[in-house]
Amino acid sequence: MLGLSLTAGVHADGKDTPSIASIVKAAKPSEWRSLDPANTLYMDLPDGRVVIELAPWWSPAHVANLKTLVREHYFDRTSVYRVQDNFVAQWGDPDSDNPKKAKSMGTAKTHLPPEYDRAYDASMTFTPLPDGDVYASQVGFSHGFPTARDPKTHRTWIAHCYGTVGVARDVDPTSGNGNTLYAVIGEARRIDHNLAVAGRVIQGMPLLSSLPRGDDANIGVYAKPSQRTPILRVRLAADVPVAQREHLQVLRTDSPTFARIVDAKRHRHDAFYRDPPGHLSLCGLEVPTRVDPAFAH
Amino acid sequence: MLGLSLTAGVHADGKDTPSIASIVKAAKPSEWRSLDPANTLYMDLPDGRVVIELAPWWSPAHVANLKTLVREHYFDRTSVYRVQDNFVAQWGDPDSDNPKKAKSMGTAKTHLPPEYDRAYDASMTFTPLPDGDVYASQVGFSHGFPTARDPKTHRTWIAHCYGTVGVARDVDPTSGNGNTLYAVIGEARRIDHNLAVAGRVIQGMPLLSSLPRGDDANIGVYAKPSQRTPILRVRLAADVPVAQREHLQVLRTDSPTFARIVDAKRHRHDAFYRDPPGHLSLCGLEVPTRVDPAFAH
Repeated sequence: MLGLSLTAGVHADGKDTPSIASIVKAAKPSEWRSLDPANTLYMDLPDGRVVIELAPWWSPAHVANLKTLVREHYFDRTSVYRVQDNFVAQWGDPDSDNPKKAKSMGTAKTHLPPEYDRAYDASMTFTPLPDGDVYASQVGFSHGFPTARDPKTHRTWIAHCYGTVGVARDVDPTSGNGNTLYAVIGEARRIDHNLAVAGRVIQGMPLLSSLPRGDDANIGVYAKPSQRTPILRVRLAADVPVAQREHLQVLRTDSPTFARIVDAKRHRHDAFYRDPPGHLSLCGLEVPTRVDPAFAH
Repeated sequence: MLGLSLTAGVHADGKDTPSIASIVKAAKPSEWRSLDPANTLYMDLPDGRVVIELAPWWSPAHVANLKTLVREHYFDRTSVYRVQDNFVAQWGDPDSDNPKKAKSMGTAKTHLPPEYDRAYDASMTFTPLPDGDVYASQVGFSHGFPTARDPKTHRTWIAHCYGTVGVARDVDPTSGNGNTLYAVIGEARRIDHNLAVAGRVIQGMPLLSSLPRGDDANIGVYAKPSQRTPILRVRLAADVPVAQREHLQVLRTDSPTFARIVDAKRHRHDAFYRDPPGHLSLCGLEVPTRVDPAFAH
């Protein structure tokens, strides 16, 4: 068998629950938001473009410094030099720890205050998920990002789900500055609120997740420079001519359509599911994206 | 920076908590068990070998039928033909749905009773995890497998964590027979107790997880046959000469060392962790494996 049914949107026998694809398709135009070019990065690899939405609400100092590095073309001709199976892909200057070989960071700062979590307030949207979480007392989505909250301390942080982009650092909590980034390709919730999250991959995850793995004994860092994936360039979308932009939209996570998707994911009335999960974990839901229909062709 | 500290076992400042690697290293010989050759599969791909431990306790009919298929060389010259990002890699005969082109299943059965969960009893070891779960009321490890339990119904099932190998099927719950298998490479808890789990990848996950992804719109099935990864052969370890076996051992999940690993993963006293997770999810822990020292060289 082809096993296509493993995820196919087979309709319910009698219950007539629409498939997730059809729920997304029925979303109103106002339920989609376009990525802000001033907070979107394009990382061009030999096989394609990775699009990252930045998270200035959560880590303003890190995002500002990262933009400085990008605008000064720090990442051009660096590489993805670490891919640890079921954990992260990491990129930047592989020689950044070697003062003799490290690239100049130009006008960017070398140390930043830790921005691992922040206080939350009424200005932030938050769509809670109903099934709890192993690592936090509340989880849900804020402005498209998977987030966790602690009502006791009124702190919030972005969870390390698939596609989350964080700022690597050394043991010194101020040593992260954005010159070394990682994207989550596996299980990484254990590092929640211990690193600054800078954004989230919106498009192009397979360009990172399907890279060859480095040796686990060396936490995924490639043994040979020839194994690295070159980074051609990283640019802020706002600095790229409109004709060369991606024009991506993300479904608003405070929209009725998003709530319908959460419900459908939890209760799967598809005929394939004999015994629907009835629950949904924070990282078990990917926020839908699309090309802005005004630019689709 | 190299960002090695992201997972490095930096020792505690004052608390002297050993790293996970050193905890594993200190395990007694009796805390390791060797894989049973009668329940271990070797899947040989062009780039290396994937080792799968079978789970006859959980799905005896599926495992028996899978062994029949393997012993009759059903999988030789089939392929990995579906890789859906953040979900599964799937293999077998890509033409199995086409009666004119499908490979013969020989003496194997074409339909099997669903074995999606089973009753648990005192014969099964179970090491519970203390931090709960989004999808089940109890989770832990049984005989090396990540499992969930429902004390109300006394049913247990293997969870779809990274590396879990399941039996694909069509909508008909009896249509899975083991001729099409998948390994979890991402988030897949949502299909728990809706498919029969046949085993777990013990070694070689990167050979599957780093394969190019198929198009999500086609649930990861490659558009062109040339994209498939050929399967050279699949053999039961017991049918392979001893000199060509892998001699792998898995840490017993009911051992004191395993309990120490769970504790270390939850409380990470490494200097890197400013704010340790304090919790551990079922799929957040990979069971340690090693080459039997009697065969290491």
